Amino acid sequence: MKFIQTPVKGMQDFLPEDMTLRQHVLGVIRDTYGRYGFTQIGTPVMEHIENLTGKNGGENEKLIFKVEKRGRELEKGLQKVRQSESAGADEAGTMLADSALRYDLTVPLCRYYSNHKNDLPTPFKALQIGDVFRADRPQKGRFRQFTQCDIDIIGDPSIMAEIELIAATSEALHRIFVEVGVSGFTVHVGDRRILRAMAKSAGFDEDEYDEVFIILDKMDKIGMDGVRDELIQSGYDAGKVEKYVGFFRMFREDETQDAAAFIEKTCSGCIGEEAGRDIAAILSAARAMISEDITLKFDPTLVRGMSYYTGTIFEISIDNYSFSIAGGGRYDRMVGRFCGQDAPACGFSIGFERIITIMRDLGWKENSDIQKKAYLVDMKSASGRITDVFARAAAERAAGVRVIVQPLKKNAKFQVETLEKEGYTHIQKVYGDTQLD
Amino acid sequence: MKFIQTPVKGMQDFLPEDMTLRQHVLGVIRDTYGRYGFTQIGTPVMEHIENLTGKNGGENEKLIFKVEKRGRELEKGLQKVRQSESAGADEAGTMLADSALRYDLTVPLCRYYSNHKNDLPTPFKALQIGDVFRADRPQKGRFRQFTQCDIDIIGDPSIMAEIELIAATSEALHRIFVEVGVSGFTVHVGDRRILRAMAKSAGFDEDEYDEVFIILDKMDKIGMDGVRDELIQSGYDAGKVEKYVGFFRMFREDETQDAAAFIEKTCSGCIGEEAGRDIAAILSAARAMISEDITLKFDPTLVRGMSYYTGTIFEISIDNYSFSIAGGGRYDRMVGRFCGQDAPACGFSIGFERIITIMRDLGWKENSDIQKKAYLVDMKSASGRITDVFARAAAERAAGVRVIVQPLKKNAKFQVETLEKEGYTHIQKVYGDTQLD
Repeated sequence: MKFIQTPVKGMQDFLPEDMTLRQHVLGVIRDTYGRYGFTQIGTPVMEHIENLTGKNGGENEKLIFKVEKRGRELEKGLQKVRQSESAGADEAGTMLADSALRYDLTVPLCRYYSNHKNDLPTPFKALQIGDVFRADRPQKGRFRQFTQCDIDIIGDPSIMAEIELIAATSEALHRIFVEVGVSGFTVHVGDRRILRAMAKSAGFDEDEYDEVFIILDKMDKIGMDGVRDELIQSGYDAGKVEKYVGFFRMFREDETQDAAAFIEKTCSGCIGEEAGRDIAAILSAARAMISEDITLKFDPTLVRGMSYYTGTIFEISIDNYSFSIAGGGRYDRMVGRFCGQDAPACGFSIGFERIITIMRDLGWKENSDIQKKAYLVDMKSASGRITDVFARAAAERAAGVRVIVQPLKKNAKFQVETLEKEGYTHIQKVYGDTQLD
Repeated sequence: MKFIQTPVKGMQDFLPEDMTLRQHVLGVIRDTYGRYGFTQIGTPVMEHIENLTGKNGGENEKLIFKVEKRGRELEKGLQKVRQSESAGADEAGTMLADSALRYDLTVPLCRYYSNHKNDLPTPFKALQIGDVFRADRPQKGRFRQFTQCDIDIIGDPSIMAEIELIAATSEALHRIFVEVGVSGFTVHVGDRRILRAMAKSAGFDEDEYDEVFIILDKMDKIGMDGVRDELIQSGYDAGKVEKYVGFFRMFREDETQDAAAFIEKTCSGCIGEEAGRDIAAILSAARAMISEDITLKFDPTLVRGMSYYTGTIFEISIDNYSFSIAGGGRYDRMVGRFCGQDAPACGFSIGFERIITIMRDLGWKENSDIQKKAYLVDMKSASGRITDVFARAAAERAAGVRVIVQPLKKNAKFQVETLEKEGYTHIQKVYGDTQLD
């Protein structure tokens, strides 16, 4: 039997220095969200296949890792597969599986809330930190198992939920990034209702919205003219397209960047004033809570891919990186699919792996005030003294010092150098007659 | 499509109070092990099937969750399954899977070490905290996904590894349990070499050892006579059995409990003096490091199930609970199966879920010095003031206070009571004219 040394394709091993950074960032996130009254919950990494394939996950549903049935259930499944020669791989695969690995933390949260709602406060402020799995094509910086940090507020229909989520996420990221000298980033706030109203006002039909939004979402990459050209190439009426793109052009040139005024000028006939007022109030309250270095703005071009969003949507971008580092929004109708009864819900998810990438790029170093000490014991002359050495180590550890005790190696010079590289500043070789420092 | 509210069979959702306890215990474990110089690493929850089915996992290999292949690989696998009608479920299941969920942290550690050994110090002191998966029959307190906390030292052939592992694990558990008023437990130290030497000395053949040890392992439950009876019922020669059981009876009556003397009397012909000296030195050094309330003893009846152990073995038991709460030992030949070159290794694993069970049984409560404050805003009269309220909340959060801001509900009395139950002591209702506290 040959053993394989590398991790499973697309997955990561973490070296000690990786884990130090990850644990540090998670600590800041937990502490910040704790101050906002979010409480951490946990769900299994496996979910019922039925819950994951109900169109809650959009494109991610294609990337599910399915877990095989076992024992008699597997036998039954295999029999079925052998009898139905015509079944495609997807169908046959599902016959043989009874669960799958979660691809996000939102579906498990909705299941969890519906299962435990009688034991949870309303509104419920949940923090989730957990691994999710997607059988994506592996590429640089993209992994098949990765960590997500989500906060969600279930049961608050008011904009207070949005304000808390934006402020908490911004503050957590701010605290993380200032350590590498970056204090600013941009929080984009949009609204699905405004997005739809603008499309309607430009003359698009409702069944065209999805494709129009997918193209609009490329604004960052292909620019305003690129969006216009691609919409026209996709066969949309040039008049509608020009009107639609004109809205965004107008907003770009509007110095006030005011959401209410923008709605008034573009789609007031299609939408109440509520969405504009909401955004203004959200921006104003969040502004009062977060660092001045953070840009906070209404962004009518913001799309966010997940179809379950029903209102406000958010995204955070940072200079010099083309990807977003956090995203979320309001999804008032998803919990209802599990509970049978709708509950207002709003969430914000940090792209944890991307944060780690940036922190590493920018050269984060552990701020180590911890004293590190090593005793290297010569096992020939001092093996009778190890109890003394360990007793000394115990006393120092009790005082908070990080202490390593190990046999002195033949190549002592290399051993000492290695420990120095790891930050051990007090290194003592212990022979039979050595006085302990 | 019907959604399922409960977790996948045998798996757990964690409520906020569960997670508070779990995070607290993990924090103590991380801090303690950190002082001993263990550094945390991480591996994916998925492993290559080849690595998990190489007889490294003993009985656990039967409990593997396999992950289905995808796309063209799945198609090829299905074709193979349809063509080989005679293949059993296990064989067919493996044709369709390319990875599986890890059932412990030891196999992934060996793979990890072999993959990264050039980037790691020697000896390497690893801390792993992660979830493992076993398709066990679900029962009370036993789950199909559960957390393990392992420390391992790879590359130290000396007893210093054992001493560090025993002291670190004992200290972590001591710090955890004193919070619920329990300061004592028992650390059992045995040795596979002594176990085998005793069996040889009693006259058993080498191919009988495994079964003999399985029966010996039941000593706790069925007692000395029970072990004797079961050995005889299993067809072993009564003379050998009496001699064998006599060893343990003698040890039980020996007040000194001295390992070296015991070996001298029972199996000195089958084993060098080394094992006895090792155990004495380990017990003496560990004794100097840990609380006097912890019992530390040589236990010749200790077996530990995993066949990969080659020397010292450990287990921790606690009064009033029949299960062990930690276990481990030396496994000098397992890393070699991955590396192609043996490396000495020794590990100690905390049964994290069992610790949690005990802490909950004994009524652990969060020691909360954190101030908790809630603002309940009347959205009719005070919606224009939310920016002020949030600014106040931000200032208090910056000072470390846990602050919740939420809309005042119609049933304000119930809302306040719920928050009080969660530990919120300062609760203020905010109307249009309320002066903020």
